[in-house]
Amino acid sequence: MDIGMIGLGRMGGNMVQRLREGGHRVVGYDMAADSGRDVDSLSGLVEALPSPRTLWVMVPAGAATDGTIAELSELLDPGDLVIDGGNTRYRDDQRHAKELGRDGIHFMDVGTSGGVWGRECGYALMVGGNDSDFERILPVFETLKPSGDSGLVHAGPVGAGHYVKMIHNGIEYGMMQALGEGYAMMEASDLVECPDRVCDSWREGSVVRSWLLDLLVRALKDDPDLARIAGRAEETGEARWMVQDGLDMGVPLPVTAASLFARQNSQLDDPMTMKVVAALRNQFGGHAVHSERA
Amino acid sequence: MDIGMIGLGRMGGNMVQRLREGGHRVVGYDMAADSGRDVDSLSGLVEALPSPRTLWVMVPAGAATDGTIAELSELLDPGDLVIDGGNTRYRDDQRHAKELGRDGIHFMDVGTSGGVWGRECGYALMVGGNDSDFERILPVFETLKPSGDSGLVHAGPVGAGHYVKMIHNGIEYGMMQALGEGYAMMEASDLVECPDRVCDSWREGSVVRSWLLDLLVRALKDDPDLARIAGRAEETGEARWMVQDGLDMGVPLPVTAASLFARQNSQLDDPMTMKVVAALRNQFGGHAVHSERA
Amino acid sequence: MDIGMIGLGRMGGNMVQRLREGGHRVVGYDMAADSGRDVDSLSGLVEALPSPRTLWVMVPAGAATDGTIAELSELLDPGDLVIDGGNTRYRDDQRHAKELGRDGIHFMDVGTSGGVWGRECGYALMVGGNDSDFERILPVFETLKPSGDSGLVHAGPVGAGHYVKMIHNGIEYGMMQALGEGYAMMEASDLVECPDRVCDSWREGSVVRSWLLDLLVRALKDDPDLARIAGRAEETGEARWMVQDGLDMGVPLPVTAASLFARQNSQLDDPMTMKVVAALRNQFGGHAVHSERA
Amino acid sequence: MDIGMIGLGRMGGNMVQRLREGGHRVVGYDMAADSGRDVDSLSGLVEALPSPRTLWVMVPAGAATDGTIAELSELLDPGDLVIDGGNTRYRDDQRHAKELGRDGIHFMDVGTSGGVWGRECGYALMVGGNDSDFERILPVFETLKPSGDSGLVHAGPVGAGHYVKMIHNGIEYGMMQALGEGYAMMEASDLVECPDRVCDSWREGSVVRSWLLDLLVRALKDDPDLARIAGRAEETGEARWMVQDGLDMGVPLPVTAASLFARQNSQLDDPMTMKVVAALRNQFGGHAVHSERA
Repeated sequence: MDIGMIGLGRMGGNMVQRLREGGHRVVGYDMAADSGRDVDSLSGLVEALPSPRTLWVMVPAGAATDGTIAELSELLDPGDLVIDGGNTRYRDDQRHAKELGRDGIHFMDVGTSGGVWGRECGYALMVGGNDSDFERILPVFETLKPSGDSGLVHAGPVGAGHYVKMIHNGIEYGMMQALGEGYAMMEASDLVECPDRVCDSWREGSVVRSWLLDLLVRALKDDPDLARIAGRAEETGEARWMVQDGLDMGVPLPVTAASLFARQNSQLDDPMTMKVVAALRNQFGGHAVHSERA
Repeated sequence: MDIGMIGLGRMGGNMVQRLREGGHRVVGYDMAADSGRDVDSLSGLVEALPSPRTLWVMVPAGAATDGTIAELSELLDPGDLVIDGGNTRYRDDQRHAKELGRDGIHFMDVGTSGGVWGRECGYALMVGGNDSDFERILPVFETLKPSGDSGLVHAGPVGAGHYVKMIHNGIEYGMMQALGEGYAMMEASDLVECPDRVCDSWREGSVVRSWLLDLLVRALKDDPDLARIAGRAEETGEARWMVQDGLDMGVPLPVTAASLFARQNSQLDDPMTMKVVAALRNQFGGHAVHSERA
Repeated sequence: MDIGMIGLGRMGGNMVQRLREGGHRVVGYDMAADSGRDVDSLSGLVEALPSPRTLWVMVPAGAATDGTIAELSELLDPGDLVIDGGNTRYRDDQRHAKELGRDGIHFMDVGTSGGVWGRECGYALMVGGNDSDFERILPVFETLKPSGDSGLVHAGPVGAGHYVKMIHNGIEYGMMQALGEGYAMMEASDLVECPDRVCDSWREGSVVRSWLLDLLVRALKDDPDLARIAGRAEETGEARWMVQDGLDMGVPLPVTAASLFARQNSQLDDPMTMKVVAALRNQFGGHAVHSERA
Repeated sequence: MDIGMIGLGRMGGNMVQRLREGGHRVVGYDMAADSGRDVDSLSGLVEALPSPRTLWVMVPAGAATDGTIAELSELLDPGDLVIDGGNTRYRDDQRHAKELGRDGIHFMDVGTSGGVWGRECGYALMVGGNDSDFERILPVFETLKPSGDSGLVHAGPVGAGHYVKMIHNGIEYGMMQALGEGYAMMEASDLVECPDRVCDSWREGSVVRSWLLDLLVRALKDDPDLARIAGRAEETGEARWMVQDGLDMGVPLPVTAASLFARQNSQLDDPMTMKVVAALRNQFGGHAVHSERA
């Protein structure tokens, strides 16, 4: 079917390729002139698509998505459909749906997983929206998803797609941290001669076999001691939102929170919390303090 | 090859079957008369095996394993080989190896993963011991392991096998808790209409695809709301030992620890810690206390 | 000075008494007819006070405070001053100040600590607002605060008072949980014959001496085994907001979060997270599940 | 009474002064020649004391204490009393008591809190041992403890003193981390103009008033931004042992553990756990990794 893709970065660009390979006619737009875009403006994109239009928004969550949707609400006609495939917070989806709905424009949110591997292997898609919109856009989902039975779910009404993606990423944080803790314990022990080969061996028969384990094995092949990689990791919001929501919902999430704290902590060079602890130790015990990280 | 199996429970019994299907001649012994054992005593088992003997111990860690190995040290000859395939703490392996070594008896420790699925799919094996013992017993490992390239690792000297198994289980705890937290957040939300189908969809394309996810989907097929399963889970030592060791090694393990605390907590009906917190709230704020769990 | 008190519950009622004992003329209002109120409506309260008026709002945070402030904005005149002494989230203070400011009405937020002990010992007051409002209301603060040099701080502009109170309560949660964990460990050990007397002994010379320790000793005098108190504790928002804010600010708060999770967890009888963990153990290991909490 | 003090460092040296001021006759010994010792060998110390002798061991836990007690077991006579006032793990106390008991030598363990403030304000003493030994040494305890009703407890048999001290320090870790987290949140906020004055204000009327808060205020007076103190803090075993024991006892200690992890983490410059997390992010998402901490 005909679809417009807004945002031709790593994710959007790869999705355009997979969609075209699947027989869809995609018109691509990006703010950047050197993005390989087919049209040079949102209005040009809208004009290039047959009615009722389908537009997939694949730009950074927050201001960029807000702005794009606001602009689209000016350009589109009743019956057109906007899909937000980014990492928007689900409460913002509900707001976007309301804004567009005032003009009769349809809205769906799609959590998209698969990273740089998605183009070849397909993307796991978690969809929020109503049934008729889901049916309408199903051919696109069928192309983007992996080839097996899984990889696509209509999780609920608008917001459900990104809610589920938020949870997915929270689980991902916990799993990554669990692998990290285990690997660190093998690396720190004199007994284990080959932590990388241990991980490789776990790929069959073990309880922890998983795609993340496969990726760890792959990373260790490139760089057996991870010597080229610093011990700091960013967090990009989803797990944070999950913990914040969990707190309000009374669902304790100690592992997700600990994973997040570990990442945030890895980015602090001289944490104030520990300055206080060191200062207190010095006050009551005369324990030496470090005057600088050395 | 010829091998004696000591312990014919869920794990040992299944391994005997897999070994026999693989062409090995296995003599099985268990304390229980109704276990389908081939001989009715350890000495009978020792007599039934050709020299140099190979004995695989698959009994509960702790006293049962200690006792079995002590008895074997009396019965075996120099050059015989004892393999502990249970969940022994690795420091105990080192002690066992020393005890047996005084009489020239060889020792290996093998962490074994795969649970009830191992008989059919093979067991992931993590081996500690010296190179020549590893070579000697390799045909047995080749039969027990899964059929692919992975699933077997010689991780290091005696103790390394169970050390690595300890780490494996610690990672497993973290992954399970991460899945539990995510599932609980989907179940608690009005937005997500079908947490079970979401999990199913993640089996392809998602970052969290894993054997544990597959098992969760399977459990949800049996019991979609997990209504027949109480929210309490035991812990069986490995993750606990890992956290205790990590503390001594200065490797912070917040996720593994949180997973463990969650399990221990799930078994407390009226935790004293929270009695104190409730008592304090009552003291300073006049906040009502609950006089019973209701 | 003249002041109107809105809300005559445990906190507001006690504060009225302390203010009157300090020589202030207080007019009290509460929605409840049996509250001992001096006037039976907000408009009656406004009429009973000389201009420029000072009104202290001491009602539950959220809808009750929102409604009260909205109503006051209709009744008051430019130059009047509204003080929110409750546990409002600081972002709501900023909104309230803006709403009232449109009509020239002044606003301050005051975090108030001291619980049921405040009437006799004084309240710790943490104030947000501008300097001239702080000076204007200082006589009231001087009466409410404890008699020593401490107990009152002008922490910053509007919002700062409740922000600081939020932090105060977060610290309080961590301290309470620390005491609870320690006490539970003494109670669980055969070695310690008298956990209550240990706590009493710590009141002098120890590093952990604190008002919360004093209160614990007091609670243990009433009920040496805390047998009359169930192991469940509510949380009332402040620590939760602190953790949520900390996540957005990149300040890891593992102890505050753990304290909060412990409370939320204490209120769950059959946590879904642990159902998932138990289901997974059953799936891979054939481990028995509990079909009910027993 | 007559007492020998072994170890004249910060703690032992101060205790000698407080004991002498209290009228006791103390003979001091230390390995270091420039320690101001009264005798230059353990045997000299033993000779200098009247029978039955009382010896207070105040040397670092572990090898130093083990060695001292082993040597004393050779030098002392039946009826002599050895007191370990250091931070020994309570299980080692039980071993020491047994070793000395074979020769009829008595043993007590005393957890000692108060740090550099103890000389002037007294030490909180937590005692393990039997009743008659406690009575015998009571005059020494009465001098060392603070002047009020609290500060001394006979907690149980041998081991109980250091068990209780272990718990005391665990609580201390949690409280310190709670204060650190709260302070960091005030320092990170634009709203709070004066975190140091806020802490000062909390010293009266607040729920968090405590000696640790007093010390924090003191530290902030010296160095308002804690600019001279690095954000790293050591841990010295007690909280670690408490968490390890709690794991075995099934008492979840999330706050104590989190406090400990925060300290251990503060000493890692490039944690392997986070290298793994960063490597995984790079693998699935193409997220940039940091090649060095910068």
